[in-house]
Amino acid sequence: MCKVAVVLSGCGVYDGAEINETVLTLLSLEENGIQYQCFAPDIEQYHVINHLTGEETNGKRNVLQEASRIVRGNCKPLKELNAADFDGLLVPGGFGVAKNLSNVAFEGSAFTVNNEFLTVCLAFKELKKPAGYMCIAPALLGKIYESIHCTIGNDPNTATIIEKNGGTHHDTAVNEVIIDETNRVVTTSCYMLAENINQARSGIIKLVEALKRMF
Amino acid sequence: MCKVAVVLSGCGVYDGAEINETVLTLLSLEENGIQYQCFAPDIEQYHVINHLTGEETNGKRNVLQEASRIVRGNCKPLKELNAADFDGLLVPGGFGVAKNLSNVAFEGSAFTVNNEFLTVCLAFKELKKPAGYMCIAPALLGKIYESIHCTIGNDPNTATIIEKNGGTHHDTAVNEVIIDETNRVVTTSCYMLAENINQARSGIIKLVEALKRMF
Repeated sequence: MCKVAVVLSGCGVYDGAEINETVLTLLSLEENGIQYQCFAPDIEQYHVINHLTGEETNGKRNVLQEASRIVRGNCKPLKELNAADFDGLLVPGGFGVAKNLSNVAFEGSAFTVNNEFLTVCLAFKELKKPAGYMCIAPALLGKIYESIHCTIGNDPNTATIIEKNGGTHHDTAVNEVIIDETNRVVTTSCYMLAENINQARSGIIKLVEALKRMF
Repeated sequence: MCKVAVVLSGCGVYDGAEINETVLTLLSLEENGIQYQCFAPDIEQYHVINHLTGEETNGKRNVLQEASRIVRGNCKPLKELNAADFDGLLVPGGFGVAKNLSNVAFEGSAFTVNNEFLTVCLAFKELKKPAGYMCIAPALLGKIYESIHCTIGNDPNTATIIEKNGGTHHDTAVNEVIIDETNRVVTTSCYMLAENINQARSGIIKLVEALKRMF
């Protein structure tokens, strides 16, 4: 049975992992008979957002502890992720990818990627194991792969970040994926475009099926 | 188009709403063409649990703010819920139901229900509008309905709480529901029994379909 590593960036769209995308990803993996283990970096969140108002609040939270909420405690520190133990990598979106796993939310195309996360992404690349990036996560791909083809939907500012880092962005609808067969990377827009859970699910189903074909 | 009110109790199985159950419930509603609005009480959580270790941590969190994480900010204060505006009520599980919406986690069969939540539950009952309770939430039903028939799976201690409050508990498998046609209430065990997301989904699909038939 194949097994995928899923990297989470917290718990909640505005300062962590997008929750719907995470649950729908794990659901699709189960529906395809693929095992999984979730991981998250054991670091402090960039900040905490009150999701009711969108405002920053006081208090500190730990990315690993918060990510554990989505998966009923079954989340491991990202530093324990050994790409050799898995058949593929999946990265759901949410601002946590842009604030905790990288600083792309603040630095735009000059962003850097969290070292621990970058090491993991490069390990899957080096082993030529397939990877799927969702929502805002493909914005990081220009710094991980050479000549990557990917999608974040159709947002021109985010597409520019990919292009400025040597990638090629393809506009897509919410239920579409872009498959880069050379780099073995599949991407879909999810809540960069989705207006409800079912729309996000439509792209995630295709993403997981594409990943499975590349095992 | 029918519309359902969904009451959340926070964000995370050990101190709030069970996240998978919540997302899967909303997914099933969308798949059935049913609109929804989520609500949560604007109160402090009973406590905050580190979901990685299971230990209580310092800090205070607000149930409404945390519940908003699951639904991308689209959650209203429970006091704004008018049963007359909805065709049915759904209550996902998680310890938040037993710690924030009631104190059944601490008081057992002598529990009390949060006043605001009790008012909502009784309003749906009085209007004879159907309701669905998941996971641990059916433990509260003996104090809401007379002679309720329901299930929380097969945990004898929780079943006793229902029986001591005048209800009748029926043991079920994870993919089964109990439908009380007289009271217009459907229940399923979800993560009282589920070992993965797909198992939880199997009961939730049947619960939402049963609710829809009672509209």
